[in-house]
Amino acid sequence: MSGTVVRNIHRAEADVIATLERLGVATVHEAQGRSGLMQPYMRPVWRGACVAGSAITALCHPGDNWMIHVACDVLKQGDILVVACSSENTDGGFGELLATSVKARGAKGVILDMGCRDATDISGMKFPVWSRAISAKGTVKASLGSVNLPVVCAGVSVKPGDVVVADDDGVVVVPRLDAAKVARAGEEREKKEAINRTRLQKGELGLDIYDMRKSLAEKGLKYIDGPLD
Amino acid sequence: MSGTVVRNIHRAEADVIATLERLGVATVHEAQGRSGLMQPYMRPVWRGACVAGSAITALCHPGDNWMIHVACDVLKQGDILVVACSSENTDGGFGELLATSVKARGAKGVILDMGCRDATDISGMKFPVWSRAISAKGTVKASLGSVNLPVVCAGVSVKPGDVVVADDDGVVVVPRLDAAKVARAGEEREKKEAINRTRLQKGELGLDIYDMRKSLAEKGLKYIDGPLD
Amino acid sequence: MSGTVVRNIHRAEADVIATLERLGVATVHEAQGRSGLMQPYMRPVWRGACVAGSAITALCHPGDNWMIHVACDVLKQGDILVVACSSENTDGGFGELLATSVKARGAKGVILDMGCRDATDISGMKFPVWSRAISAKGTVKASLGSVNLPVVCAGVSVKPGDVVVADDDGVVVVPRLDAAKVARAGEEREKKEAINRTRLQKGELGLDIYDMRKSLAEKGLKYIDGPLD
Amino acid sequence: MSGTVVRNIHRAEADVIATLERLGVATVHEAQGRSGLMQPYMRPVWRGACVAGSAITALCHPGDNWMIHVACDVLKQGDILVVACSSENTDGGFGELLATSVKARGAKGVILDMGCRDATDISGMKFPVWSRAISAKGTVKASLGSVNLPVVCAGVSVKPGDVVVADDDGVVVVPRLDAAKVARAGEEREKKEAINRTRLQKGELGLDIYDMRKSLAEKGLKYIDGPLD
Amino acid sequence: MSGTVVRNIHRAEADVIATLERLGVATVHEAQGRSGLMQPYMRPVWRGACVAGSAITALCHPGDNWMIHVACDVLKQGDILVVACSSENTDGGFGELLATSVKARGAKGVILDMGCRDATDISGMKFPVWSRAISAKGTVKASLGSVNLPVVCAGVSVKPGDVVVADDDGVVVVPRLDAAKVARAGEEREKKEAINRTRLQKGELGLDIYDMRKSLAEKGLKYIDGPLD
Amino acid sequence: MSGTVVRNIHRAEADVIATLERLGVATVHEAQGRSGLMQPYMRPVWRGACVAGSAITALCHPGDNWMIHVACDVLKQGDILVVACSSENTDGGFGELLATSVKARGAKGVILDMGCRDATDISGMKFPVWSRAISAKGTVKASLGSVNLPVVCAGVSVKPGDVVVADDDGVVVVPRLDAAKVARAGEEREKKEAINRTRLQKGELGLDIYDMRKSLAEKGLKYIDGPLD
Repeated sequence: MSGTVVRNIHRAEADVIATLERLGVATVHEAQGRSGLMQPYMRPVWRGACVAGSAITALCHPGDNWMIHVACDVLKQGDILVVACSSENTDGGFGELLATSVKARGAKGVILDMGCRDATDISGMKFPVWSRAISAKGTVKASLGSVNLPVVCAGVSVKPGDVVVADDDGVVVVPRLDAAKVARAGEEREKKEAINRTRLQKGELGLDIYDMRKSLAEKGLKYIDGPLD
Repeated sequence: MSGTVVRNIHRAEADVIATLERLGVATVHEAQGRSGLMQPYMRPVWRGACVAGSAITALCHPGDNWMIHVACDVLKQGDILVVACSSENTDGGFGELLATSVKARGAKGVILDMGCRDATDISGMKFPVWSRAISAKGTVKASLGSVNLPVVCAGVSVKPGDVVVADDDGVVVVPRLDAAKVARAGEEREKKEAINRTRLQKGELGLDIYDMRKSLAEKGLKYIDGPLD
Repeated sequence: MSGTVVRNIHRAEADVIATLERLGVATVHEAQGRSGLMQPYMRPVWRGACVAGSAITALCHPGDNWMIHVACDVLKQGDILVVACSSENTDGGFGELLATSVKARGAKGVILDMGCRDATDISGMKFPVWSRAISAKGTVKASLGSVNLPVVCAGVSVKPGDVVVADDDGVVVVPRLDAAKVARAGEEREKKEAINRTRLQKGELGLDIYDMRKSLAEKGLKYIDGPLD
Repeated sequence: MSGTVVRNIHRAEADVIATLERLGVATVHEAQGRSGLMQPYMRPVWRGACVAGSAITALCHPGDNWMIHVACDVLKQGDILVVACSSENTDGGFGELLATSVKARGAKGVILDMGCRDATDISGMKFPVWSRAISAKGTVKASLGSVNLPVVCAGVSVKPGDVVVADDDGVVVVPRLDAAKVARAGEEREKKEAINRTRLQKGELGLDIYDMRKSLAEKGLKYIDGPLD
Repeated sequence: MSGTVVRNIHRAEADVIATLERLGVATVHEAQGRSGLMQPYMRPVWRGACVAGSAITALCHPGDNWMIHVACDVLKQGDILVVACSSENTDGGFGELLATSVKARGAKGVILDMGCRDATDISGMKFPVWSRAISAKGTVKASLGSVNLPVVCAGVSVKPGDVVVADDDGVVVVPRLDAAKVARAGEEREKKEAINRTRLQKGELGLDIYDMRKSLAEKGLKYIDGPLD
Repeated sequence: MSGTVVRNIHRAEADVIATLERLGVATVHEAQGRSGLMQPYMRPVWRGACVAGSAITALCHPGDNWMIHVACDVLKQGDILVVACSSENTDGGFGELLATSVKARGAKGVILDMGCRDATDISGMKFPVWSRAISAKGTVKASLGSVNLPVVCAGVSVKPGDVVVADDDGVVVVPRLDAAKVARAGEEREKKEAINRTRLQKGELGLDIYDMRKSLAEKGLKYIDGPLD
């Protein structure tokens, strides 16, 4: 199916996406059962952004960014462009001109399993980009890949229309059909954490709040008064 | 000795710790004979912190942060929690809730040979954390490790009560019984460096200040006028 | 030729260097045919600097910074010190005292295929340094290398007097004799990009601006309406 | 869906699997359009094996091999067990006892995105295993994962019943429904290569056999007689 | 304590060492509670050796092998030389001449947290060496380290006289005072494994032999008949 | 100069090349002052080969092996093909068909700063290949590079006609004009090593043979009788 572009995709509902964006990566990742997190080499080009949107997927080849240009044609307002690469490479296939273009076409952010160039300009534009490297290395436009077919990006399977959430903690992918359920679970989790946060701030221990002492003892944990030296 | 917690440890004197904190990692590392520096993959979650404190050590297993919860129980004001892992892993075993907890219990900072999550929140709290990665990947609470037994963290042997100094340059460990001596040596070094700094600022060369020209000539260094091309 | 220092080198013209500095790494790299870029592990100690200058080259050995001291002796106003290492190592062979020294001798920046220490101080001085790591690990002064002989630094061949350009995107090296030509090509590129930027901002597609649709079709790219699921 | 085991899966036809095994990884990878190859860190524990079979997939967590035991229960004659891990880890979750078990249950080989232990014994048994590391590090049996749900293993999406082909070149995954088509394409490729091999052995150039001279000239390739120095 | 050589050390008893050698790395590592394993980047220069002996420890600096020569002076029959390095480096500080020397002095093997050269000759000599790399890169003799002080080698704390066991699975360190106990535990383990091996060979499942079905069910593992597609 | 092929190059004399081949990588590397060694990630596809020859250089781009085909056209009997890549990538741009071709054209071996495929076949042919990875990942023929211009390969500058020596220890490059001198120096070194080898075999220490005791004492090395524990 290399050499294929799918023009239209299903997207999750806007309010679900908004909820996932507010919850952030760590909470969403936990809320969907600790799955879907891209590998931690994916880092933001600048710190402080948090975005969620529908995945437009592109598959490129090492040193080649042609399919990013093709993907611009099918982006819609609020989408996040997810660029996978057929083997490991850090060349800078995305820079300020492409950022200008995808922003003009409505993209909220870009996820690159390759390098990003023009880091200063992109930071200045406050356009959110996550990448495996910052590199000015130029790329060619020579090999067909695909747009809007399923890809594996930074260790995670991404289907077009899945919800991508990205912040300083990394990038997590929520399957489109699970998005509403995960958003609800995340909100539940958020509430519980707020209560626990208050207790922890007062100096209560997680050992007690989460009731761990018994299971630790059952596993055989032993306390020694010490000091040993 | 896995499955053991030592409640009490010896700590270095507060003024010695304060001196080491003021000196910073690079000076302390040199002052103790260029030893004790953790591997450079240990990076601050946010730039600008410099802390020193007594090590509370925890040994966890990959993907498991249970012993961090146990360690909270034995932390005292001014301690630094040092978390080793029994094999390489970047999962995010420490986040904002645990930061809230250890801060409430008096910890000055945390050193993680694993990943850290909630990077934005922890940066906002200005709570000092050094880690091998930033990752939202969740962890389980299933395997016993130890608290306050000696560990190897990021390539350095750490005993409970050793003084840990951490800043933007990384993390250095000073054996407790050497701490006072190292603090004094660091202060001596600081004075010498202040004098050298003034001379270097005026354009004098290290070659002359440190008297290197003779040993370079003895080793056979040759000067050619050039240019060669 | 180890154990050799060449005192004088040819340098590119000041206005050419100034142009390359203004253009920045990504544009210069493209303008010289996508060559000369150091590997992307070379990162700035602090974000935001952009400098260009004539390369003074030093070859050091792992854990040894002696030749940096020797190189200080031949630096001239506006030079950039490029430090190669004979094998991979991240020890912190350059810190605030050496930064003070090379700055006093006129250097505009330093490129280190080793570690940099005193990251906070160097950031505070706003002295531009790129390195493969931040590490406080101390170094010795024991082995002769060379100064102003050709080196390979971070994967790129550097001859003394070549123009080095460095910013947040990394480090690129322009052979001295090509520098004027590359500067002109970079300015041409800049003009074209300005025009394309305006068109992209309005939402035109790169597919149309760069006239890619025909070659994509010839390669066999197919569009499917979708959605597929 | 974590915590789920699917007992029965569809498998590709035996003769298709046999053809893919005979063709080997490189030919199969090309025949399906250069896709499906696992990352090259996946290496055989011993050199010389070449196997193909139906994928039984297991998802484990770092430092935990519980789901491998569960997967043994659903293995059938000729299957290949594919073990993914929810984050990067090299612990030795598979060794000689498990090799004995899966072999007794009919497995033809094992693919581990974790470490393998007992390398000497497994080599002696001539049981084919590919892994990301050799490590004696022990694992626990504490966390539920899944068996026979889709996984991402070493950068490739694997569904239960997909055909896995592995040899000294690495590991490639062929979607079950494409397997017959890929097998045919591989045989075609094999025939062409046999003809080309004969021509290349006689000293003919690929430039002529594959008719590249014209396209090289169109791209602008220039020949200089030389020598240049 | 840099610049110190300790001439004499305590060693474990010969029969304990012989037992640990026979058991091999994986069994010893498990028998001492899954601790003491060096990182998996430590690989044998040639496959097939299995040795155990008393650790003679040396601390070298990157690119410098001087302390290996010093250590030769204190080696005794049956010892294993363990060479740590003060920071990461792969230079080839040990080759065929040093192998000849340590072999003549009675060493059974060498563990190098640096590179090894002369791989062909050392393989031909059948002298057992484990290293982090194979590299011909030469080293200097310029910096003092230590001999027979505690070191951290490949992530593990090693004290002089500890028992080192190394085979194709890697390298494990057993504290001297625990060696007899670990040897006994290893023999127990060996017996149990022999029984389980026979049962597994007959096709019994680990699920039943290790009685895992109940705990899996308690954790919530669910079986689906399938196929799902 | 991208897009350029130089047809003819100068080569070193055959007897010099033969001497360097006999000496092997480690000796040659030392004999030319510990320079010219490629990074240790360059490994032989099969163990046991040792070759030397004149470098034919090719520069490829990631995921593209077109220039290897072009280079076949200018290879002469006894040459070694050195393939550099413009950025890091492990794709398998060289396999059994290309090995057949370069062998038919007279090449003695191939050095790849990319991946190699068909590892089994190439091992069976006993054709010597060194590469940074083994990978079946296919490549395209789309981008011009160069043939017989200077390149940087695995960290070392290589000019066409330089002598390349490769064996199990890695790959070293000797500048053509230095080759005769290096060969002589290597033979000298070999003689000295033969004498030292005999002394070391008898149990004499390097400390005495190389007269190190005095310089160790001057540096301050101290001996303690021990044991310390």
